[in-house]
Amino acid sequence: MSTNEKKSLLVSINNRNGNNYDTLNTITAPNNFPLHNNEDNLINMKKIKKKNENEEEKKFKQIDPINLDERRARGDLIQMYNIMNKLDRINLINESYHYFFQYMSSRHTRKQTTQFDENSDISFRQNHSFGLSMDDDMLEITTDARRDVSDLIDRSQGSKNLMDVPLVEDSSLRTHYDDFHTIDWLKDLARDRFRHRVIQKRKKESIWQTIVTLHDSWSGWICVLLVGLSSGLVAAMVDIGTNWITNIKDGICVNAFWLNKPQCCWASKNITYDLYNNPKCPEWFTWPEVFNDWDDGFGEFLISYIFYIFWASFFSLLAVLLVRVFAPYASGSGIPEIKTILSGFIIRGYLGKWTLLIKSIGMMLSTSAGLILGKEGPFVHVACCCGNIFSYLFPKYGKNEAKKREILSAASAAGVSVAFGAPIGGILFSLEEVSYYFPLKTMWRSFFCAMIGAFVVRLINPYGNGHDVQFSIDYKAPWSSFELIPFILLGILGGLWGAFFIKFNTFWSKYRKSTALGRYPITEVLVVALVTALVTFPNPYTRISMTDLIKMLVSQCKAEDDSYLCNYERNFTSSNAKILPANAGSGVYRALWLLFMALVVQIVLMMFTIGIKVPSGLLIPSMSIGAIAGRMIGITVEQLAYHYPKFILFQNECSKADENCVTPGLYAIVGACAFLGGATKMTVSLVVIMFELTGGLTYIVPLMAAAVTAKWVGDAFGRGGIYDSQIELNGYPFLDNKEEFNYTTLASDVMTPRPTDPPLSVFTQEGMSLAEIEQVLKETTYTGYPVVVSRESQHLVGYVLRRDLQMAISQQRRNPRVSGKSMVYFNKTIPQNPPTSNGALSLRFFKLLDLAPVTITDQTPMETVIDMFRKLGLRITLVTHNGRLLGVITKKDVLRHTYSINNHEPIFN
Amino acid sequence: MSTNEKKSLLVSINNRNGNNYDTLNTITAPNNFPLHNNEDNLINMKKIKKKNENEEEKKFKQIDPINLDERRARGDLIQMYNIMNKLDRINLINESYHYFFQYMSSRHTRKQTTQFDENSDISFRQNHSFGLSMDDDMLEITTDARRDVSDLIDRSQGSKNLMDVPLVEDSSLRTHYDDFHTIDWLKDLARDRFRHRVIQKRKKESIWQTIVTLHDSWSGWICVLLVGLSSGLVAAMVDIGTNWITNIKDGICVNAFWLNKPQCCWASKNITYDLYNNPKCPEWFTWPEVFNDWDDGFGEFLISYIFYIFWASFFSLLAVLLVRVFAPYASGSGIPEIKTILSGFIIRGYLGKWTLLIKSIGMMLSTSAGLILGKEGPFVHVACCCGNIFSYLFPKYGKNEAKKREILSAASAAGVSVAFGAPIGGILFSLEEVSYYFPLKTMWRSFFCAMIGAFVVRLINPYGNGHDVQFSIDYKAPWSSFELIPFILLGILGGLWGAFFIKFNTFWSKYRKSTALGRYPITEVLVVALVTALVTFPNPYTRISMTDLIKMLVSQCKAEDDSYLCNYERNFTSSNAKILPANAGSGVYRALWLLFMALVVQIVLMMFTIGIKVPSGLLIPSMSIGAIAGRMIGITVEQLAYHYPKFILFQNECSKADENCVTPGLYAIVGACAFLGGATKMTVSLVVIMFELTGGLTYIVPLMAAAVTAKWVGDAFGRGGIYDSQIELNGYPFLDNKEEFNYTTLASDVMTPRPTDPPLSVFTQEGMSLAEIEQVLKETTYTGYPVVVSRESQHLVGYVLRRDLQMAISQQRRNPRVSGKSMVYFNKTIPQNPPTSNGALSLRFFKLLDLAPVTITDQTPMETVIDMFRKLGLRITLVTHNGRLLGVITKKDVLRHTYSINNHEPIFN
Repeated sequence: MSTNEKKSLLVSINNRNGNNYDTLNTITAPNNFPLHNNEDNLINMKKIKKKNENEEEKKFKQIDPINLDERRARGDLIQMYNIMNKLDRINLINESYHYFFQYMSSRHTRKQTTQFDENSDISFRQNHSFGLSMDDDMLEITTDARRDVSDLIDRSQGSKNLMDVPLVEDSSLRTHYDDFHTIDWLKDLARDRFRHRVIQKRKKESIWQTIVTLHDSWSGWICVLLVGLSSGLVAAMVDIGTNWITNIKDGICVNAFWLNKPQCCWASKNITYDLYNNPKCPEWFTWPEVFNDWDDGFGEFLISYIFYIFWASFFSLLAVLLVRVFAPYASGSGIPEIKTILSGFIIRGYLGKWTLLIKSIGMMLSTSAGLILGKEGPFVHVACCCGNIFSYLFPKYGKNEAKKREILSAASAAGVSVAFGAPIGGILFSLEEVSYYFPLKTMWRSFFCAMIGAFVVRLINPYGNGHDVQFSIDYKAPWSSFELIPFILLGILGGLWGAFFIKFNTFWSKYRKSTALGRYPITEVLVVALVTALVTFPNPYTRISMTDLIKMLVSQCKAEDDSYLCNYERNFTSSNAKILPANAGSGVYRALWLLFMALVVQIVLMMFTIGIKVPSGLLIPSMSIGAIAGRMIGITVEQLAYHYPKFILFQNECSKADENCVTPGLYAIVGACAFLGGATKMTVSLVVIMFELTGGLTYIVPLMAAAVTAKWVGDAFGRGGIYDSQIELNGYPFLDNKEEFNYTTLASDVMTPRPTDPPLSVFTQEGMSLAEIEQVLKETTYTGYPVVVSRESQHLVGYVLRRDLQMAISQQRRNPRVSGKSMVYFNKTIPQNPPTSNGALSLRFFKLLDLAPVTITDQTPMETVIDMFRKLGLRITLVTHNGRLLGVITKKDVLRHTYSINNHEPIFN
Repeated sequence: MSTNEKKSLLVSINNRNGNNYDTLNTITAPNNFPLHNNEDNLINMKKIKKKNENEEEKKFKQIDPINLDERRARGDLIQMYNIMNKLDRINLINESYHYFFQYMSSRHTRKQTTQFDENSDISFRQNHSFGLSMDDDMLEITTDARRDVSDLIDRSQGSKNLMDVPLVEDSSLRTHYDDFHTIDWLKDLARDRFRHRVIQKRKKESIWQTIVTLHDSWSGWICVLLVGLSSGLVAAMVDIGTNWITNIKDGICVNAFWLNKPQCCWASKNITYDLYNNPKCPEWFTWPEVFNDWDDGFGEFLISYIFYIFWASFFSLLAVLLVRVFAPYASGSGIPEIKTILSGFIIRGYLGKWTLLIKSIGMMLSTSAGLILGKEGPFVHVACCCGNIFSYLFPKYGKNEAKKREILSAASAAGVSVAFGAPIGGILFSLEEVSYYFPLKTMWRSFFCAMIGAFVVRLINPYGNGHDVQFSIDYKAPWSSFELIPFILLGILGGLWGAFFIKFNTFWSKYRKSTALGRYPITEVLVVALVTALVTFPNPYTRISMTDLIKMLVSQCKAEDDSYLCNYERNFTSSNAKILPANAGSGVYRALWLLFMALVVQIVLMMFTIGIKVPSGLLIPSMSIGAIAGRMIGITVEQLAYHYPKFILFQNECSKADENCVTPGLYAIVGACAFLGGATKMTVSLVVIMFELTGGLTYIVPLMAAAVTAKWVGDAFGRGGIYDSQIELNGYPFLDNKEEFNYTTLASDVMTPRPTDPPLSVFTQEGMSLAEIEQVLKETTYTGYPVVVSRESQHLVGYVLRRDLQMAISQQRRNPRVSGKSMVYFNKTIPQNPPTSNGALSLRFFKLLDLAPVTITDQTPMETVIDMFRKLGLRITLVTHNGRLLGVITKKDVLRHTYSINNHEPIFN
């Protein structure tokens, strides 16, 4: 190509924008820039990085990753090479696919871990759930797309004496991110838009294509439909299973062992209720009855006690063994991890089918064992497992991590929806607590998904009460304004308890990790289960399940009710009579005492239970503790109002003797709301869940007041709920969406390389030989390298991924004319007479380049940088000054920075 | 300064990052770059831009901006210059405020309209609400901040022979954006963080400072508290006023004219109900009765009719006159404008106190006039006015447009909360429909604000029914699964109606604007009011207010109810008897026929009413139409089920004769939900509002099914609800948050300059004289100019605002040693021996520079660019290639691009 030709070429390029910005690109100056000159430096750097890596790795390994199936990985590698070779033969490489490849390259950036991420083992583990070969499918789209895009684009200059490196052959490689890596939202979403565009283009080609397009459009809705159906089904089965197993601790239905106590007593005509409101019927045999010990004394108590302890320990042991052996990820509530995953982190197997199965069974067992934990939180995890599994049916979601998170957001809404029968609460929970990226579209999907889930549970009706309203309240008494004082008091108590619980939980988790305790999880579970069974059995309020307890505490005393809790000095004339305020009988005081004991027992046990290696949620225990506290305060206020009706607070509201101005059950609801709010720091979603749970729309303001107070009080002792504290404790790379204000630093203070570090490894647009590049790849472990115009100017051209480069090189190396002396070009335009040494073929890697990396200037305040990372979902940004590359900032740098700065944050802003 | 000194200086700068990137900055090449050479070009360009400006201006002027108070503006100008002079004397200029000024400069960027925005008249109109002098306040913060920041920062090099241009003196100028401009979220939020940091730093200095800090921390909560209180108050007053004025049309309370009909009849013992369920009592005199026409025949009807028409026309006329004369912005629902304002647009006076006052009064009048419009939508506007007014009490919000929008988001939640008594629905409405930037913090504030608003309305109790549940339903009959079919049918009808209404509304608005009709808004209102009164009076279902109609339609027939709608062949034994399915009497058929007429009348009238120049919402009319349609379908299904109990759909559900399996009232609720959903395309918030309105938690699934169906069907005919269509119609610069997929363009295709345009106006870092710069400022009207290293390299250094430059120059010009020959430097480091021609003092404008403009590469796909504009709230981004400046993309470019591309979007994705 002559100089004239080259000039006209340049003109033709520059015509487009009217600026001749390209003319200076080819100036290459002597190699005196202090990069790559100091090999020792590089090696030292590597060592430091390696050390950091190991530390990082250790940190992540603490959450029990599944062992890598080496053999399968190797099999994939071979298959991949085969595909590559095939494609090489097909040789569809054409210069004109410029735009396409550009998009493809943006597609490939998803493997873009940061320069300082560890990337030592490139494991090609793919998710083989449902036996779909994702790779083949992906390839199909790729080749099809290529055909179409050629219509859309203008043809640019062809290459003659250079070997072009296309990206098609290795697209199969880059479908998935590695385990414990962060995804790149921006690139993933761009990739999806491209995929969508290709499908839309082909819409009118044939009827089949129209169907494909329609399927693609609807696949999101179909997927969430399936997720909703499956989570509803799983939830109903878990509910039924739990009920049955729980009743096993008490006794057995002699006629039909597969029935639980309520079902067994259903048909019975002789149901009686004891003083703690527990049903009894002759069809149901308690264990002492089974063993013919009809003596109603100490013997019966002892046998019941022993059986209770035995079953509790047995179920707990079974749960922990299942979790340890089959699915380590099934322990805990899973919400902190779901939150991290939704923020763009990859934890392989966390949402797999094994986790789903074991978690479902484990939930039943651990709840039934009577441990102070709930199964409502883990339902979120279970629903997300369903979401993950079904997303693989739709390549649009299964193969795009960013899109998959839309399904997972909807699934987490369905999780809460099926757990509490609260679809709207579920959506808000997903929005407020769990999700990171929540566009309106996702909200509609979540809505649909939650609705389907709730509908399925309602159809199956596991509780026999419709599940529309789990703790339904049957009173509609208006609340008085003075009651806001005890409600706010409950809020304060809830906030204090939440703050204390979070602090203790953090301390205990750290203690568990750092001492011998952490090495004996099974023993720990067994001990907790034994102690729990020992101390909960004697107290009738802790012996029953926590859901039953809450149900009892929130309900109002009725006329026919003669349990201790309702032992008032009332004389009901009819069952419809008004419930007048009355003096509490001795039964109420006895119940109060027992409730206080239950409160202490539950608080202490919960502190040690949350965190053991069984599926365990803290929503129901928190609510239970709150409900106990609330009911106690409610009874106190009720009796105060009865005895001192002339007191200034009560005189306007409670002086009319014909109305019951204080409903203790309402205090239980408000207490449950306050204590749950204190622990989780939820507000809106909590209130909505509470009133969906109870159906008490009249009580929004009390619930809101309690939730807001609990949050404020809790925030005074430290921001973030229990889930945030667990995320921090486990060191998950979660970039909090909440705003912080204490950074005064600039991007240049945070970026790597730091002043003491060796300079950044970069490639130049031209003038590097293949051997030089291979050397850099060998000496460094970064996952990507910036490409600059020249070492002197350091003007940024683009960003290239290690993986792309390695693939391209290994492919080109099979050509005998390519040697270490081959010159490598990252140019779009071809330099005239490239300096081919010894006839070695020159290589063009232009298409590997990501030409649109996100850049910032070195003077950008870190707040803005963090904002960009959060809102755009970046993994890496390049730092420039006057167009010159200075360094990079990765998500890890940002996380490190946010952790390192003073954690003292303003509470209200 | 010697060469050595300079070198060591450079080293000291570069030490920080370890790269000597600054060394090449000072290379200045001959001025052969084709910029500013062609003056004709520039002038032509100016003309073209001026033309565009005028067009743009015309477009915005269509929404009746308030006339500029010229005199006040001039007064401000003089005041400002005085402040400037004072500051000049104080002469606190110090080089060491580097960081501070940088922040200040980012602060100033808020006036950064895009290069192609019109900026011809710099009007210094400020919002003088509450008589606060914002400017003084701002100055105070500024000077205080200066003192503090000097502690935080390192001192850099002082300037000797250059005049430094500080920014302090003109901060007062830049407090506000101009009218009809877009705000820069990123800069505004950064500004707030800086302000916060300064306050936090001073926290421990004195008790007063601690109080200031606490006040600052709490001001957000206090502000939303005030907003909640005031919107609750306004809503209650409007409700009371509306009730009274509405009843005036019917008659008057002779004993106490200030009482409305229900209040008047309250104490009466002789309340009777007519066949349409309207109460009657002797204390209430209808107009015929007032005029002693006791004849119960045609004469009475005629007098009532005439009075009805008279009052309706009178109220409408009053409403439109008030709006036209005092507050043109008070017309319509205001939701599209609120949406635009929340997305970052400035419309001065739209949320002012006049608008608040006139809109409140106008709402009462237009609703009372019986027009087919609602006052629920406008409540959002009213609440936002409260939010805007109260935000000026707290400089943190009043002076920062981005922060102010947090308060406005909360206020819009309060608006819906007080309108419907639905706090949770309000939060979701704010989130789903209105807000653009909705961090969690705002959600909690909205929650609090909505709660307070609902609580205040409940305390004042304007309806006498607690307002907790406006259309409370008293049935809890479970719905049968087969009923999902009619519910989905209602959803389809709602979607179709919504699509039709949106299309017609768009057409009619365009017709109004393009024809003579638009010039006679008062006549239009009068004609609509007359026609409405004429056709609605004869039909008893349209004569009553729409809220009463909906209340009637959603309620179940009771035993004592003998209105036409409940004329079934039932024999009730007691008032508590079960409502059995029964054959409909002739009254029901009569009611059906009247309802059908009402449906037609309301549909036709609503089409022409929405859009006239009175405060008008479409939520209640949509619900009313839906409720009518729903009740009609409900009665049909009920009768079908009664007559054909063996039909396959009914046989499992309705064969039991002792239960009423179809509740027509439920169909009315579902219908209201579906039709409202069709028009507004709301889903989650709609369902929540509906069940907060009705208290019908049992019916979530039917409501959800109808809402989702309505949205799907409506989306098939065009995306976006009525508010989106109005935004598009009015050409508001609203960058939709919904994702679109059809861009295949790159940033380089969209940026200005286009290939045919003259090149971009830029300044160079050094080498330009003051005269040259003044020339560029005179010849162009851009609001900002990029600064590059040199004309050849075009390497981007920063971005400078026109306003900052003009201020700085006019200030420096007062110094006699500064002349047109003075050289201007944008450098941080000082060139040795600057070429001072004729002893003219050189100027340093470094501090005017925004050193962290957001940049992208020319190869960035437009989707990514749009994503960045949306998520980061940008106004402008600079386009570079290999570090060289190519052009700019402004928000307007992006909007133009999104409008220009094919609007055909995928429905489901």
